Amino acid sequence: MADDALVIFTPSGKRGRVALGTPVLTAARQLGVDLDSVCGGRGICSKCQVSPGLGEFPKHGLTVAEGALSGRNAVEDRYDRVRGLQPGRRLGCQAQILGDVVIDVPPESQVHKQVVRKRAEAREIVMSPAVRLLYVEVQEPDMHEPSGDAERLAQALETQWGLKGARCGFAVLQGLQPILRKGGWKVTCAVHQVAEGSEPRILQVWPGFHEGRVTGLAVDLGSTTIAGHLCDLASGEVLASSGLMNPQIRFGEDLMSRVSYSMMNPGGAAEMTRAVREGMNRLIAEIAAEAGEDPRDILDAVVVCNPVMHHLFLGIDPFELGQAPFALATSDAVNVRARDLDLTLHPAASVYLLPCIAGHVGADAAAVTLSEAPEKSADLVLVVDVGTNAEIQLGDRTGGVLACSSPTGPAFEGAQISAGQRAAPGAIERVEIDPVTKDPRYKVIGCDLWSDEDGFEAAVAETGVTGICGSGIIEMVAEMRMAGILDASGLIGSPEQTGTERCFLDGRTYSYRVREAGEDGRGITVTNRDIREIQMAKAALYSGARLLMDKRGTDTVDRVVLAGAFGAHISPKHAMVLGMIPDCALDKVVSAGNAAGTGARIALLNREARAEIEATVREIRKVETAVEPRFQEHFVNASAIPNAVEPFPILGTVVTLPDVSFNTGGESGSGEGGRRRRRR
Amino acid sequence: MADDALVIFTPSGKRGRVALGTPVLTAARQLGVDLDSVCGGRGICSKCQVSPGLGEFPKHGLTVAEGALSGRNAVEDRYDRVRGLQPGRRLGCQAQILGDVVIDVPPESQVHKQVVRKRAEAREIVMSPAVRLLYVEVQEPDMHEPSGDAERLAQALETQWGLKGARCGFAVLQGLQPILRKGGWKVTCAVHQVAEGSEPRILQVWPGFHEGRVTGLAVDLGSTTIAGHLCDLASGEVLASSGLMNPQIRFGEDLMSRVSYSMMNPGGAAEMTRAVREGMNRLIAEIAAEAGEDPRDILDAVVVCNPVMHHLFLGIDPFELGQAPFALATSDAVNVRARDLDLTLHPAASVYLLPCIAGHVGADAAAVTLSEAPEKSADLVLVVDVGTNAEIQLGDRTGGVLACSSPTGPAFEGAQISAGQRAAPGAIERVEIDPVTKDPRYKVIGCDLWSDEDGFEAAVAETGVTGICGSGIIEMVAEMRMAGILDASGLIGSPEQTGTERCFLDGRTYSYRVREAGEDGRGITVTNRDIREIQMAKAALYSGARLLMDKRGTDTVDRVVLAGAFGAHISPKHAMVLGMIPDCALDKVVSAGNAAGTGARIALLNREARAEIEATVREIRKVETAVEPRFQEHFVNASAIPNAVEPFPILGTVVTLPDVSFNTGGESGSGEGGRRRRRR
Repeated sequence: MADDALVIFTPSGKRGRVALGTPVLTAARQLGVDLDSVCGGRGICSKCQVSPGLGEFPKHGLTVAEGALSGRNAVEDRYDRVRGLQPGRRLGCQAQILGDVVIDVPPESQVHKQVVRKRAEAREIVMSPAVRLLYVEVQEPDMHEPSGDAERLAQALETQWGLKGARCGFAVLQGLQPILRKGGWKVTCAVHQVAEGSEPRILQVWPGFHEGRVTGLAVDLGSTTIAGHLCDLASGEVLASSGLMNPQIRFGEDLMSRVSYSMMNPGGAAEMTRAVREGMNRLIAEIAAEAGEDPRDILDAVVVCNPVMHHLFLGIDPFELGQAPFALATSDAVNVRARDLDLTLHPAASVYLLPCIAGHVGADAAAVTLSEAPEKSADLVLVVDVGTNAEIQLGDRTGGVLACSSPTGPAFEGAQISAGQRAAPGAIERVEIDPVTKDPRYKVIGCDLWSDEDGFEAAVAETGVTGICGSGIIEMVAEMRMAGILDASGLIGSPEQTGTERCFLDGRTYSYRVREAGEDGRGITVTNRDIREIQMAKAALYSGARLLMDKRGTDTVDRVVLAGAFGAHISPKHAMVLGMIPDCALDKVVSAGNAAGTGARIALLNREARAEIEATVREIRKVETAVEPRFQEHFVNASAIPNAVEPFPILGTVVTLPDVSFNTGGESGSGEGGRRRRRR
Repeated sequence: MADDALVIFTPSGKRGRVALGTPVLTAARQLGVDLDSVCGGRGICSKCQVSPGLGEFPKHGLTVAEGALSGRNAVEDRYDRVRGLQPGRRLGCQAQILGDVVIDVPPESQVHKQVVRKRAEAREIVMSPAVRLLYVEVQEPDMHEPSGDAERLAQALETQWGLKGARCGFAVLQGLQPILRKGGWKVTCAVHQVAEGSEPRILQVWPGFHEGRVTGLAVDLGSTTIAGHLCDLASGEVLASSGLMNPQIRFGEDLMSRVSYSMMNPGGAAEMTRAVREGMNRLIAEIAAEAGEDPRDILDAVVVCNPVMHHLFLGIDPFELGQAPFALATSDAVNVRARDLDLTLHPAASVYLLPCIAGHVGADAAAVTLSEAPEKSADLVLVVDVGTNAEIQLGDRTGGVLACSSPTGPAFEGAQISAGQRAAPGAIERVEIDPVTKDPRYKVIGCDLWSDEDGFEAAVAETGVTGICGSGIIEMVAEMRMAGILDASGLIGSPEQTGTERCFLDGRTYSYRVREAGEDGRGITVTNRDIREIQMAKAALYSGARLLMDKRGTDTVDRVVLAGAFGAHISPKHAMVLGMIPDCALDKVVSAGNAAGTGARIALLNREARAEIEATVREIRKVETAVEPRFQEHFVNASAIPNAVEPFPILGTVVTLPDVSFNTGGESGSGEGGRRRRRR
């Protein structure tokens, strides 16, 4: 009989021979198999559960006999009794290999387990958090070898976990001695390590084996809203999510008005810093309460935001970001202690801010890069994060990534539109206009019925129809154009020209009536000024994308990713009709949802992703739209709404835009947004 | 004519050929010559002053002709006008080498200048502080290369000073942008770097060239007194020194009573932590005021102290140090921010605490090691730091270093002695007793006259003669023994036995009257109980030393260094008569003064010394007296005061101790302290 046995781990396929009697966990370590353990093989944590196989494994040419593993022992029996062990499961640290065997490592037992993301094209998140729990048994003090308790703890982490040079945080050091004694020299450490090989910092020590979970916070700190996810740093699971309005809004709706506020008011920047940090603390409190956690137990945090929010959050006056050359105080990733930001997280928690790409392209854009990985894309992808500023990235894995920011203004968020409003119940979010009758039908947020369906009025009686949100505006304008209510220059036609009384003279131009004033007295109309605002916004967005395409030397992109909360609700068809984004096969336009928030979550769950995005950002070529003459040129030409005459395929249908023009003087009716189609 | 020239730098002797026109500073760098510069050769800082030679240099086989250097230029003229340039001095960054030349680098122009120490055998301090000023010119921001201001500052430090990866402290980052602009992209940085190659941290940035000096604080935090030196981190000069009583004294005179206080009183440790930090802040304020500096400008600090003070200062409950196995919370050196210790230094200042050797042998002992370097000694040296505990080290460069602590108690500091007092004006510090008349003469602190000299009483009228300080007690007891007033067992004889009425019955034993009660009503006597206290203290000290000698396997030492404030005032002759220290040629017994304070100053001025002492401490073999049976044995035997019969040479005189015994029963009159002499 051989004194060793063949062991094959699935799903990795790693295999090798180990001495008989070797515990499965030890074998996994020897063969480099990804099998979790917090207690280091002491039968306490149960993270190392495995499913041994039995019988024939033709794929591996192996027959596993009964007795290939040692029988269930007292530790496993006790664990099963107390916490339950699934049938067929064994504790990897207890089960010993006694013969050739195939052992499956279930996903939840893998250290670097993957967090499932919904979109097929989305990158997977591999668990590799900066903070993890490690259970150790520390050598007792010896008068004749008088090393300190902290040094013996560090030594235990090194010998039992291969973690070199761990240092206690100052607060940990202050309280270490009684904890070591309370735990009988057995303790669990929460260890923070920025990267493999960097100095590990012990954030907290618990006596004995600590059952609690380790949590971290990923925050997308936007100008308008602050949204966060509280994640379990072992499983990657999102425990709670929450969002609130950025309290800085009282200092100005958009970023530049906040920069102005800081310029005009002594102490204004500090005031805004306090406001945003208070907002963060409210979010932290809410989200922790939802998850049933103490905010003081949250051990790690990642924050993504635009450069102005970045500076204000860090307590840096954003003055320089308000004027050329838009110099950032710091562009690298920032590692800072939560307490330096007055955040009510764990006192030893770190906060990581992703690097900024440029003065107008911030850590939020870097987070989008991390989520969407244009630098790894096989095809040429345009990633657009639509907000008050649009951050635009264009790239693929061969040609690298270009990035710019474009000042779209707040029109896409419903601001500066006469009937515009935030996306909230009562807001029109979907629109269709009959090309014959020119009558609209629409859906409002909070109601599943279309406005021409029975019961609609009753269903919206409570909320009313209060306005049009950003995505509704896009559809509205595109539908008006497709129905021939609007000409290519963006002018609304007269009743005579359009054949509908919904168009009416409103001052010197015409407006389009969407909904009559009801009992609440409020009607909804689209004015020619609204159209102008949308034209400006979409022209800015389009020009930014176009500028990057120029720099790249291309007229087309293979794929468009719409990111941001707004991007998630936008209709690709209408966006393309409007000329917001360059042409692209419609099925190649996808929404990535809140990609910046996803990027923050990736950086929270995977520390290697931090180093990776830092390196990627250094390679991104930045294009400053403010000083690019081509941008202005594109902008002027892109204000038109395409009057394409050729049919172009949208979701299998054929759309032909009417070649109408309501005004022959002044503005050009055939902008670049149209010409580009002809060029095809 | 050659297109290069020979340049010889003195005092280093470094030589080489450089291209004609090379500035002296550049040549120095090329040849690895230690020539200072803060401004990086821009003619601003004047740190690179040199003295070029002229004429014959037979030693170097060189004749230096007129014109070997370029003539004085406008920058030097201006510097001379504004700040004065000594005759013969040139600015190394301005003077160009045009021919063979000998250039002297005066001490103040050397980067690693040496700080002069008084004692011949003392190690020199080479300037290599952890914090230094560096002037840089930072690249302006460029919209097309949108790196942050902090990153461009770091880049400037790298290209202009070879300093890689410098990071701004968080407060620096917050205020960086306006400073860079105010300085026109020229700034001076205070950079902290623990060691060559470790991450440099930018503590402060000033616009333009900063003229101010960089200061650091070295503190000897004793149980009784806190003493500090404020040092110029460029020159090493001590700018101010100050000391105050440790406010913790109200919680207990000695360390163990403070540990007891913390055990008996909830929150007691925290209370003592507050007290000592308040004391530190008072010291900082005093010392800064004396030097005319703002305490908030002090950029670095080193603190040495015993383990109990170490823990209390750091905010660690010293509970474990009060009982075996005397486990330290941490034994390694501690790097902590001043603000974490609530110290009113520069907000970004670091505080460095030397490593502790053992639970009873602290960072102060490590500082003594650093100052006295027993591990580098060619002869076998015994280093004794006398305080409430004596820390004793024995070693040489071949056999390594042994260390222990011995509980001498506070008798050497004048406590628990009936007429004992701290060293202050009015305290007897020197004593001689006439062996025939048995009358004493003495000197008191604050008066240069001996007590039997004319005018003594008038001179001490103001202070009075108030008591006997520690060093006075040693001399008193030794002189009493030498005059035959005391027998070897430590008993004071009767008037009949001693032949002097100064001895009088005082309860059940005799006392010795030093000074009659005067108008103030206070006389000074030495009681038999006082003798007992001193016997216990000296026996503890001697036994510790003896134990280390046993471990080392030697009966003799080559050299004795007495450290500590008390050690500085102790008379080697009397110490040896008393049997405090092992025998040694008297001229080989020296006082190192406050060696712990010196060690703190070395660590402050030379960062390499920190790594060095950390490595040295790891190699020191610790001996725990509390559990060594040999220590008890030595202690019992060492309480006697030697009754050596052979003459032994003390400063050329011959002393014979009388072989008297006042008591034949009870205590042994011939302890080991005596026997060891017979063994010779």
